[in-house]
Amino acid sequence: MSKTSPPSAEVVPCCPPLTERPMTAEEAETAARMFKALSDPVRLRLFSAVASHAGGEACVCDISDVGVSQPTVSHHLKKLKEAGLLLSERRGTWVYYSVAPSVLAAMGQILTTAPAAA
Amino acid sequence: MSKTSPPSAEVVPCCPPLTERPMTAEEAETAARMFKALSDPVRLRLFSAVASHAGGEACVCDISDVGVSQPTVSHHLKKLKEAGLLLSERRGTWVYYSVAPSVLAAMGQILTTAPAAA
Repeated sequence: MSKTSPPSAEVVPCCPPLTERPMTAEEAETAARMFKALSDPVRLRLFSAVASHAGGEACVCDISDVGVSQPTVSHHLKKLKEAGLLLSERRGTWVYYSVAPSVLAAMGQILTTAPAAA
Repeated sequence: MSKTSPPSAEVVPCCPPLTERPMTAEEAETAARMFKALSDPVRLRLFSAVASHAGGEACVCDISDVGVSQPTVSHHLKKLKEAGLLLSERRGTWVYYSVAPSVLAAMGQILTTAPAAA
């Protein structure tokens, strides 16, 4: 019925490039939460496994080869979802995860080394 | 005597864009360590304060306005240095910190959303 915007059109309101100006306390809280989600090696591998999976999405069944149990995989995926880095959708037996592109773009922007274009 | 390469020419051997292929365990360890350094809001504000300071460098005396004590500022700057994100140089009374551009670039590359160019 209603039109939905493509996910990539949603802009996460955080944050300026680190080199542009000092972050405010509020911006730093938001950005630190995103970086924290990627500060665990296993979680980072799982995130990378989802991000690079064919079709841009994966279920737990697709990415169980990082050497941890399936409940641990599920736990980390939940954490990534809570941090806003992954989206999820249940289809039949499995929950499929995909990268939230706007969040990845926002994190990339923070780490941009060149001054941002006006 | 000897020629030194500009810092930006040093390439941190980590890591592929998250969307390119699943990270190896070793890559994830390295990248997670960098993200962990930015996972604290105060540390992130201090890093941003250094990164955006005039001349690209700052001493503790320049960035004491984030609401924490100077020893705490020094502690966080030390952590950022240990993680490889900041470089430091003592000049007289003060230690001056600057962003390690290759590390910032490496982190930005990890979060690149478009497939990397060959």
